Amino acid sequence: MQLLKDRIRRDGKVKAGNILKVDSFLNHQMDIDLFAEIGKEFFRLYGDCGVTKILTIEASGIGIACITAQFFHVPVVFAKKHATKNIAGDVYTSQVASFTHGTTYQIRVAKDFLGPQDRVLVIDDFLAKGNALLGLIDLIEAAGATLAGAGIVVEKGFQDGGALIRAKGVRVESLAIVESMSEEEGVVFRE
Amino acid sequence: MQLLKDRIRRDGKVKAGNILKVDSFLNHQMDIDLFAEIGKEFFRLYGDCGVTKILTIEASGIGIACITAQFFHVPVVFAKKHATKNIAGDVYTSQVASFTHGTTYQIRVAKDFLGPQDRVLVIDDFLAKGNALLGLIDLIEAAGATLAGAGIVVEKGFQDGGALIRAKGVRVESLAIVESMSEEEGVVFRE
Repeated sequence: MQLLKDRIRRDGKVKAGNILKVDSFLNHQMDIDLFAEIGKEFFRLYGDCGVTKILTIEASGIGIACITAQFFHVPVVFAKKHATKNIAGDVYTSQVASFTHGTTYQIRVAKDFLGPQDRVLVIDDFLAKGNALLGLIDLIEAAGATLAGAGIVVEKGFQDGGALIRAKGVRVESLAIVESMSEEEGVVFRE
Repeated sequence: MQLLKDRIRRDGKVKAGNILKVDSFLNHQMDIDLFAEIGKEFFRLYGDCGVTKILTIEASGIGIACITAQFFHVPVVFAKKHATKNIAGDVYTSQVASFTHGTTYQIRVAKDFLGPQDRVLVIDDFLAKGNALLGLIDLIEAAGATLAGAGIVVEKGFQDGGALIRAKGVRVESLAIVESMSEEEGVVFRE
């Protein structure tokens, strides 16, 4: 998606430790007009797949998932990362190791909101080692739902998550795939 | 907002400990068509206030804030609750005590994304004791930005947050104010 790649080249910042900072438009401050273009593109890719629900994970996937859902006219469910009194009762859970935060955490979705009748599109802002996406796929499998595929805004193509998950037969569509990046040379995208 | 009150009456569940569960449409599974009506109503209320930015807090405020921002054509910034490698450098911070989670946590916004030029509309799903909203107002004051007001989806009118914050001269618009609630009698709204 050219608009997105141009924006990453213009406003993204590469930091030590393979960090691509896109917090001025994607995951801290959020450019909602850009999100509308992203949502439209996910709908172009998955609009004919009978999607009944969009699944994402808190926090930075939520905005993109909600704007995208407007094109599909389906509800969004976000997996929760942190214990709360507000999820009681039966939940599906999975363990996720976080590259960004350097920890392992449990993700949860209430069983009421994911079931065998659902065809699920997973939306997230980043795909790197793929742990969050694998966790979300776990939840979908546990619910007996069907995975339509994953829509990712930025994939770090130099990490192995994308290859690993595509090798399982999962359709993964990433709107920008970073082939390599460095503080000196900036971001190079896969063609 | 009648549509919202009807929905809370139909699908909300009152649980022990003053918990109003609206997780089937508001803060776990999210009804995006309802969010569009909510966003339209916030725009009716604040559309003439020169809002330049919407501020919310992760996680459950993000979806509502993003859909609302489409009417204002302004960016959304969400305050982060959890330490991450992705916010480095200068941040505004405030301490928030959480009624829902029974803990105290720090919220943060990068200084790059909030400044004296901003007129800020705060959006959140719930207002109860008002701690999260007070924390967000702290961040806006620290940034030297102007607070246009707060748009709240559900206010627990029997808790003191709304009265406290309005007494400070802040405009607070809540789309549904719960006067009282109980497992036996359900939800009674303020007229």
